[in-house]
Amino acid sequence: MRTQLEEQVLEEIRPGPAERKHIADVAGQLLEIARSLGGAEAMIVGSVARDTWIHGDRDLDLFLLFDPELTRQDLEERGLALAKEIAGKMGASYLQKYAEHPYINATVDGLDVDIVPCFRVESAAHIRSAVDRTPFHTRYIQDRIGPYVDDVLLLKLFTKAGGVYGSDQMTEGFSGYLCELLVLSCRGFHGLLESAAGWRPGTLIDPEDHRTKDFSEPLVMVDPVDPGRNVSASVSLDRMFEFVELARGYLEAPSPLFFFLPDDDSLTKEDLLQALREKGTVLLGLSFPTPPYIADIVVPQLRRSLDAVRALLERNGFVVHAAGCEMQDLSCILLFELAGGSVPPARRHTGPPVWNQMNADKFSLKYRDGPTTQLLSGPFIEDGRYIVEIRRRYTDAGDLLRSPEVLEVSLGKHVRMSLEKGWEVNRDGDCWSAGSAPFITRFFRRESPLTRIRRLGKIRK
Amino acid sequence: MRTQLEEQVLEEIRPGPAERKHIADVAGQLLEIARSLGGAEAMIVGSVARDTWIHGDRDLDLFLLFDPELTRQDLEERGLALAKEIAGKMGASYLQKYAEHPYINATVDGLDVDIVPCFRVESAAHIRSAVDRTPFHTRYIQDRIGPYVDDVLLLKLFTKAGGVYGSDQMTEGFSGYLCELLVLSCRGFHGLLESAAGWRPGTLIDPEDHRTKDFSEPLVMVDPVDPGRNVSASVSLDRMFEFVELARGYLEAPSPLFFFLPDDDSLTKEDLLQALREKGTVLLGLSFPTPPYIADIVVPQLRRSLDAVRALLERNGFVVHAAGCEMQDLSCILLFELAGGSVPPARRHTGPPVWNQMNADKFSLKYRDGPTTQLLSGPFIEDGRYIVEIRRRYTDAGDLLRSPEVLEVSLGKHVRMSLEKGWEVNRDGDCWSAGSAPFITRFFRRESPLTRIRRLGKIRK
Repeated sequence: MRTQLEEQVLEEIRPGPAERKHIADVAGQLLEIARSLGGAEAMIVGSVARDTWIHGDRDLDLFLLFDPELTRQDLEERGLALAKEIAGKMGASYLQKYAEHPYINATVDGLDVDIVPCFRVESAAHIRSAVDRTPFHTRYIQDRIGPYVDDVLLLKLFTKAGGVYGSDQMTEGFSGYLCELLVLSCRGFHGLLESAAGWRPGTLIDPEDHRTKDFSEPLVMVDPVDPGRNVSASVSLDRMFEFVELARGYLEAPSPLFFFLPDDDSLTKEDLLQALREKGTVLLGLSFPTPPYIADIVVPQLRRSLDAVRALLERNGFVVHAAGCEMQDLSCILLFELAGGSVPPARRHTGPPVWNQMNADKFSLKYRDGPTTQLLSGPFIEDGRYIVEIRRRYTDAGDLLRSPEVLEVSLGKHVRMSLEKGWEVNRDGDCWSAGSAPFITRFFRRESPLTRIRRLGKIRK
Repeated sequence: MRTQLEEQVLEEIRPGPAERKHIADVAGQLLEIARSLGGAEAMIVGSVARDTWIHGDRDLDLFLLFDPELTRQDLEERGLALAKEIAGKMGASYLQKYAEHPYINATVDGLDVDIVPCFRVESAAHIRSAVDRTPFHTRYIQDRIGPYVDDVLLLKLFTKAGGVYGSDQMTEGFSGYLCELLVLSCRGFHGLLESAAGWRPGTLIDPEDHRTKDFSEPLVMVDPVDPGRNVSASVSLDRMFEFVELARGYLEAPSPLFFFLPDDDSLTKEDLLQALREKGTVLLGLSFPTPPYIADIVVPQLRRSLDAVRALLERNGFVVHAAGCEMQDLSCILLFELAGGSVPPARRHTGPPVWNQMNADKFSLKYRDGPTTQLLSGPFIEDGRYIVEIRRRYTDAGDLLRSPEVLEVSLGKHVRMSLEKGWEVNRDGDCWSAGSAPFITRFFRRESPLTRIRRLGKIRK
């Protein structure tokens, strides 16, 4: 049972006949060339093969399945050679790219085609590389998805508009395969939303009832082709419950906004300054050139750096109201909203318990007889421990973030290497730029996806 | 083995022959009158009876020990009548006062004489009122203190100058009886200091080796006349280790300052303002009329109120650097040193986990559809919970302390009654008055007693 709204949405997103024919033709040519060249089994995988692609998608994945007896090196050499030959025969321009293995990315008749060599393993439990699993996923979905193709389209659009689609490190959301499995296991889009409205952390779905281990992630979808793998391992607690909230919100009051968010409504610099005045907080941005690595490597380091610099600010007495980070093409930014930009010079410093005489004497000697410029009061005794009040090194948060202390905290390797060449610290309105505006807006508005939809719904009325 | 310094100190504090004779004469007359009147056994107790009083002390305690068969009411009536008759025959002016029972406080020949009725019980384990124990203490000490009288004098002076003498609620320090027992059990002043230098929390001294229970206080001196009582129950962890620190400091570098602190060296108002500028902190004082009860009732309530108001400040976003209180004759004061006097209007407010649907919906409805003047951002989801940013009611700490919220926190009964009639809030220099200067000075300097002695020692040089 689909609503009128959903039917209208589907009208807009189902690929049209010409589009289908175009992709089917290209796929057919690719398969034909591959088969004529031989050396590997050729297979179209991904959403095109599963018929779960959205109008306008231009992605096509051709997998080349090689004999699993080959060495990895042989696979890479023969695989790349075959992939290049196929691209050449299609008359396509192409690039060599890398995931776990090298592969070819070609542009064919306006389509973005990945040609990926992998091993033709016996079962998904015997994979030698992550890509070996994909053919199994495709076959599993192809065999079952028929009645639910429209539901998958709706769910993909719903999760995209809600900002929870994507299993990459930055999004920490729902992959396409997960969307397909969720629709299958709940028998459709509505069944899923009703189920999700009641999800709790630790929710477990095991379609083949063959789980071989315990998973610790908040949402567990046991891979039907691999009992030891959680398909939703990438989904963070917050993305999971943003989806839960969206499901509840949609069931309560459906609206096209759940499928198509309006264009960018970023804050202008003036909006930002006005909002900062109203909140009384201080914004500090630390930016540096993006390390030359893929997002799945850089983003976790960026998150760790964010936590470490946040802890540095807190250790120095600043109250951090919120913190966020973004990896952009050219630069990465760590953003902090503070309750205030400066702290008083005096800070408490707790020493050892007085009954630990050796350490107590050392502490007392250091401060009582040390340079009086540093000591502001004490030592005194509180809860049996020595305490002193000493002068802070940094009373301004900007000075601290500009100081070498930043390099002392636990940054990731590539973030550190990039920072060592220098970084920039901006405050309040100076954090804003056209490029960073969408990130700053998300950071500063701090809305859950449903909150955003409700706000935009009110504006629309 | 006493040092030359200690001998000099003793010269100054031993009561002189005329003083001894005067007190002995008055004590003799009191005993003679009491015995001639009959009805109770009369006994001089306290430091005079034990010969452990300091030159200049003017306190004399006459206890009247009544038949334990009497009812409490009979004791009070007959005891007061006899005490008044004794005071009258001495030609003294007197007042009736109250501890657990009423007693008479008389001024006789320039001496401050307490005449206290009590029960003549069989043993200290059978007391009917706390004062019944005193005669047992006096007899126990009298029998043993002979060789250590000078050591007790030194220790009393040492603990007084160090600010750790007194078992009242405000001081939480060492009683005179505890000083006597410590000197006895460590065979002298030096023995005690050497022992105390190594004390740890839970140090146990049981002179009669007859303890009948476990005590939880940091220092335990089992009462030699009552195996179920800890004589040092009043000693707080901090007073205990201030004494430990004094002992170590004296053993390392003795000085007359450990016995005689120079006169008041309080901060002037200008000193205070200068120090506040240097530290960058803000001082706020909340003062109100002292409730008409004794310190042992008011002070614990004052401490509880201090903790509660401190928590109120912290709940409202203020960083409390230090807090202290004092009960003075006319007014009580709660003093707070804050990292800053104001906070930004925005504050985070954490709601329920999203999976708790009923509460989550209630929360979201309240803020998402509530008055927009209160909501600054959100709801958003963090660690699976709803969070909003809302406008604070109070952004100025002084406004908060002047608000009725103060009456909502857990104050003691008498403090609340006094506050309900009104209170005053002062900031920075306005907290200072001649009367509060010594307290503000101690609060603001925050020195352990040894730190103070060392500082004064440097000035002296």
